[in-house]
Amino acid sequence: MDNFSFWSPTYFAFGKDSENRAGELAARFGGSRVLVHFGGSSARRSGLLDRVEKSLADAGIYYAELGGVQPNPRSGLVYEGIELCKSDNIDFILAVGGGSVIDSAKAIAAGALYDGDFWDFYDGKHVERALPVGTVLTIAAAGSEGSPDSVITKEEGMLKRGTGSDALRPKFSILDPALTQTLPPYQTAAGITDIMAHLYERYLTNTKDVEVTDRLIEALLLTMKHEGPRVIADPDNYEARANIMWAGMMAHNNSCGVGRSQDWSSHNIEHELSALYDCAHGAGLAVTMPAVFKYVMSHDVMRFAKVAVRVWGCQMDFDHPEVTALEGIEAFRSFLISLGMPKNFEELGAREEDIPKLVETLCRVNNSDGCVHGFTTLNEDDCTKIYQMMV
Amino acid sequence: MDNFSFWSPTYFAFGKDSENRAGELAARFGGSRVLVHFGGSSARRSGLLDRVEKSLADAGIYYAELGGVQPNPRSGLVYEGIELCKSDNIDFILAVGGGSVIDSAKAIAAGALYDGDFWDFYDGKHVERALPVGTVLTIAAAGSEGSPDSVITKEEGMLKRGTGSDALRPKFSILDPALTQTLPPYQTAAGITDIMAHLYERYLTNTKDVEVTDRLIEALLLTMKHEGPRVIADPDNYEARANIMWAGMMAHNNSCGVGRSQDWSSHNIEHELSALYDCAHGAGLAVTMPAVFKYVMSHDVMRFAKVAVRVWGCQMDFDHPEVTALEGIEAFRSFLISLGMPKNFEELGAREEDIPKLVETLCRVNNSDGCVHGFTTLNEDDCTKIYQMMV
Repeated sequence: MDNFSFWSPTYFAFGKDSENRAGELAARFGGSRVLVHFGGSSARRSGLLDRVEKSLADAGIYYAELGGVQPNPRSGLVYEGIELCKSDNIDFILAVGGGSVIDSAKAIAAGALYDGDFWDFYDGKHVERALPVGTVLTIAAAGSEGSPDSVITKEEGMLKRGTGSDALRPKFSILDPALTQTLPPYQTAAGITDIMAHLYERYLTNTKDVEVTDRLIEALLLTMKHEGPRVIADPDNYEARANIMWAGMMAHNNSCGVGRSQDWSSHNIEHELSALYDCAHGAGLAVTMPAVFKYVMSHDVMRFAKVAVRVWGCQMDFDHPEVTALEGIEAFRSFLISLGMPKNFEELGAREEDIPKLVETLCRVNNSDGCVHGFTTLNEDDCTKIYQMMV
Repeated sequence: MDNFSFWSPTYFAFGKDSENRAGELAARFGGSRVLVHFGGSSARRSGLLDRVEKSLADAGIYYAELGGVQPNPRSGLVYEGIELCKSDNIDFILAVGGGSVIDSAKAIAAGALYDGDFWDFYDGKHVERALPVGTVLTIAAAGSEGSPDSVITKEEGMLKRGTGSDALRPKFSILDPALTQTLPPYQTAAGITDIMAHLYERYLTNTKDVEVTDRLIEALLLTMKHEGPRVIADPDNYEARANIMWAGMMAHNNSCGVGRSQDWSSHNIEHELSALYDCAHGAGLAVTMPAVFKYVMSHDVMRFAKVAVRVWGCQMDFDHPEVTALEGIEAFRSFLISLGMPKNFEELGAREEDIPKLVETLCRVNNSDGCVHGFTTLNEDDCTKIYQMMV
């Protein structure tokens, strides 16, 4: 196991009606002038925003609103939010929504205490300080509610990039599984896929002898395997929603990924798809992961065989471990398709003729040495072949 | 899943030589006058104390020392520590040792900011504030490095009792697996047993449909099953030590126990043994758990069958699940014995004739309504029978 530091100081309030604690928690963590940041009108229509804002008002907290966050959140709204924070003396940002809203809130939080262009942080500069952020999560997916990470898309060039800093970890996150019961099945499935991607990206390691984190990752994958079909079959299943929601947080706060190298090739390769086609990140991952896994499988066949046996219930073929490894990848792919996820470029809305453009942005613009690094190193030729496997 | 709050703000510095970060971390978390609290002379002999104190000195931090913590830490030294903190204006306590040292440090930390008798906190009063505590862990066992809990034995009446408060969560914990390589096999095995007890106490729940935490607990039990024999066979196996050390923290910071009722009967029943005989807590648990589990098994046979199949690799007997359940308990017991743990009262150094006294303290002094509550409710008669099963 590699040496590591781990710090996850977020306070989690989990369960039915916990959004009514928003005011109490914002006050506890230093908020007196709060920016309520959210996405579309559904948060208003559902009554969630009203409940959250009532909770803030009951705690004597001033609040301003900034809605309009899109999936694959854009830099334009981030600039707007930063201006609003500065002009309205905002001291706390409360994200009410999913990963896009939380990531946008984190970007605003960093930019509000910085004199330069916030995009610097997505271009390599480390975030040293940021306004405190709280979240009321409405979809189990991104794990941003417990992570130090944020991903933003810059309209100019449609660059989708991430940053990470302990300064961006939410002070508190409110997780009410009941809020996710109204999600359309496609979004639910895309969230499940994103969670499983966060687990696989950590599972694909070159660090030897990391049984504890291997087992924890497998535990969360097994949870998703069990709960995914239950929640697609019955969207109102609170217990399944609750298990998925806690798994989604645990999958990405890194308690299961410490002390080991990680992959993140699939995320990198997918980001070009959601940046260009504005598809759901999880849907893009559903198409990307099986291709990447098959392409890199020979790098460590036994690792793929292990997850095949332990998670997907495959029988180990001791004479031909590569058969088991491939069977596990196929089982994962079939599982994602069974949840309603796309299986190829066409179903995702991507085009084969764009592959050169995807590869160029991936390998030349977003990765300075022309390669995607992780479990293996993938050059332009590798990435081209991987995109072609998705067609 | 039940509603819950979860907060684990401890900063973990994990890996080889991380004890050299003690000064940097104490300063970061507000320490300027530090009490270094430890156990016996081995911490001095091994050079660990010198390295830690050099790190403090290098950071410009004043420190005082208080050694002499015993296993099953006593109130006498706690009183001494509280006086020292007050007279020497201590603002941070650094525990260098195992669970006993950390628990003692937490008690001192609470008492130092309290005008009354610190024992009040072990008699039901909630700890609202405490001096900040940091830890340098030397044995994977108690989980106190990441938990809000502390257990102290009061010499008068040999009462062993616990308290818990978020104010007692360590600010930082330094986990260097190499420090545990010099532990005698018996202590290593007792630590492994304690970790597995923390997992079983959470596994035995009456909350339905908690797949995510079931799976996480099973993952950590599987890790201990894999790494336990490896570390007993080869005490210098750093990787096995590292996997056990992170599992020990995760087993007890409660990320795997949220939203579900827990048991803690075995801990309650064992505490009387280590209070009376001063045996290792883990060794007491090795004798206690199989007896308790067999006694309560009929309360939920399928739960015991589940852990038998998923962790102990038993084949499910679908016609007679109680056979599988019992097989799992026997497998666990055999595993503990194989690590070198005692299997009965005699090997533990306990006496059958003391059972009435054990039951009296357990049921009348330490539990106000005469019963031990958890997975099931155990009255004096039940507890008597359980102790008799251990003979």
